[in-house]
Amino acid sequence: MGDTEYKNRLFSMTDMIGPTDKEAAALARARWDSLGKPLRSFGKLEDAVIQMAAITGDPQFSLDRRAIVVMCGDHGVTAEGVTQTGSDVTRTVAENMTRGRASINIMAKEAGADVFVVDIGMDCPTYENTDIVTGKIISRKVARGTGDIAKEPAMTQEQCAQAMLAGIEIATKLAAADYNVIGLGEMGIGNTTPSSALVSTVLDLPPIECTGRGAGLSDEDYKRKVMTVSKAIARYWKATEGSEIRKDRHYSAQLGLEVMAQLGGYELAGMAGLCFGAALNRVPVIVDGFISQAAVLIARLMVQVMPEYLLASHNSAEPAGRKVLSALGLHPVIDAGMFCGEGTGAAAAMQLYAMGLAEYIHMGTFHDIQVEQYKLYDHNQ
Amino acid sequence: MGDTEYKNRLFSMTDMIGPTDKEAAALARARWDSLGKPLRSFGKLEDAVIQMAAITGDPQFSLDRRAIVVMCGDHGVTAEGVTQTGSDVTRTVAENMTRGRASINIMAKEAGADVFVVDIGMDCPTYENTDIVTGKIISRKVARGTGDIAKEPAMTQEQCAQAMLAGIEIATKLAAADYNVIGLGEMGIGNTTPSSALVSTVLDLPPIECTGRGAGLSDEDYKRKVMTVSKAIARYWKATEGSEIRKDRHYSAQLGLEVMAQLGGYELAGMAGLCFGAALNRVPVIVDGFISQAAVLIARLMVQVMPEYLLASHNSAEPAGRKVLSALGLHPVIDAGMFCGEGTGAAAAMQLYAMGLAEYIHMGTFHDIQVEQYKLYDHNQ
Repeated sequence: MGDTEYKNRLFSMTDMIGPTDKEAAALARARWDSLGKPLRSFGKLEDAVIQMAAITGDPQFSLDRRAIVVMCGDHGVTAEGVTQTGSDVTRTVAENMTRGRASINIMAKEAGADVFVVDIGMDCPTYENTDIVTGKIISRKVARGTGDIAKEPAMTQEQCAQAMLAGIEIATKLAAADYNVIGLGEMGIGNTTPSSALVSTVLDLPPIECTGRGAGLSDEDYKRKVMTVSKAIARYWKATEGSEIRKDRHYSAQLGLEVMAQLGGYELAGMAGLCFGAALNRVPVIVDGFISQAAVLIARLMVQVMPEYLLASHNSAEPAGRKVLSALGLHPVIDAGMFCGEGTGAAAAMQLYAMGLAEYIHMGTFHDIQVEQYKLYDHNQ
Repeated sequence: MGDTEYKNRLFSMTDMIGPTDKEAAALARARWDSLGKPLRSFGKLEDAVIQMAAITGDPQFSLDRRAIVVMCGDHGVTAEGVTQTGSDVTRTVAENMTRGRASINIMAKEAGADVFVVDIGMDCPTYENTDIVTGKIISRKVARGTGDIAKEPAMTQEQCAQAMLAGIEIATKLAAADYNVIGLGEMGIGNTTPSSALVSTVLDLPPIECTGRGAGLSDEDYKRKVMTVSKAIARYWKATEGSEIRKDRHYSAQLGLEVMAQLGGYELAGMAGLCFGAALNRVPVIVDGFISQAAVLIARLMVQVMPEYLLASHNSAEPAGRKVLSALGLHPVIDAGMFCGEGTGAAAAMQLYAMGLAEYIHMGTFHDIQVEQYKLYDHNQ
């Protein structure tokens, strides 16, 4: 295997992602406006349906087969003391997910979604199962955890490309199995730290503005976390000084891969890969909280049209989450101060979007209900 | 019948509404904190479950029987030209609701809720059915529409009390039929105008800050609507000048009744009554958008502990909605720019709260999943 083989395969795929179908979007807009209710009165739920029509290329798309993919990985940076619990909890929770008792199982069940748990980089022995099935851990391990980003790159670029390709493969197989929406989930003790480092780097924001308390930290531990994020970023700048690939700051597959490899995590790379794979298969993606937001920020850096395929779910309690969503032009529908991760916010929003779709499909038109159509005024409100 | 009979009956009931059960709330808090997930990581969904435990007095309450009650009434103020459509649309849509094709039927079905449609003051002949059943219009008509509030009181205080008593009766019958949550819905062409007048009066805010475009108005019609709200409020102040009941500005059943009778509507009074009836029967109430928010603002004026029984659903597109929720200390979980009314936002949030309850009931504890419990820090964030 050449030392750019995964990278070349990855870029050949990201290059193929094109814009969504604006004609299907226009047809969906026209259908909403014909329905017997005040115009635009389902707000963002209308926008979401229109966007999903554009993604699928079908104004009569379905959301009847729903998947949440939970990418699981460990983080060398936990050595810096940035978490309340140890890395072993990643595996414990991931295995709990296969028994149906983790937070995401319960939320996904309520949302009518199947849960797929992937070992993309946990620090534990390799599982045997490589099939894409629920109720088992799917083995796509690239390595046993990342390097400590405060001191070294999280992974090599080839490892990063391999994790992204695994995401593409899983999304493609889910699409082939007729899943028509994918929610991003993750589990990885310590993964808000690389997420903060990625967001701070890509959005050019001070580390403290991008760093929250994760699953809950004391004031002292929080300060240490901010320092760790700062150290990681400083190390990254130094390591890549004079790098040619920095020239295209805004959209560059190579730059995104480099940043993710330097500062990210396997589950973050895997989620970016899920986005690519979903887009290639015209499947809408529901973003979860801060960690998945950091992952899609890198996906956007690599593929300019990426946000057209992404729907936000909720404003997480992590302070920089709103800034990421705003940079991506995404508008969350839930504002509940959740920060549970695992894909729980994506599952909750999936249900809400499905409710919007039910209105779109089943509501009578003005003609059906014998009411004169409302007029639309542009109020610049 | 004496001319204060309804009023006396109403006040004897509102007087009986006491605080919720703080012990049940503490037990629910303890259960959440024992669950194997980052502490407080379901945010407002945790708060909602705790509040519902307090309302029901039972930390193991259920949300398996869900009701949306749609109060329907007409408004004399439509004569001022404050709406896009005529009052006849109220009846058309209400009848559509009995056929399952209105917005609320679709949303309620997705949320697993039954829809009860009540004629509390529509401008149409009286329906025969007086039973509390889905699929039929329940007849509790007080009058055929309100007076034009720009020129005269919406109704008499006795009529207002009668509408509120109808709400209490319906909530009580739903509780007796084992419904364990009630969502507020309404249908009434023109009803954002009295809602704005109520909110402006109770919160002491200028009419323009409390007036939105309702189901959609041109700039010219919008200006007329603001003027109409202002005229109605001026008329009310003049009509009640020197009134003794103004003395207790903050909590007064008599004042609330007077304001609602002067500036409100039958469906608004009916929704306030639903709140009283639900509280008397320890059933949680999910508030919908702006019109129901105006109704519960009056309910709070009449019963000080009212907000303890109320859960917000969404931030509607009406500009003053956030101010009402903030005045009531309620925190919506959905922010989707919806303004469809009918109870659609309440139904959507009901589903979200039920998802939170599922987590609360089914998630494993730290002990179950063999993970050390997270610590909680107070960050004063």
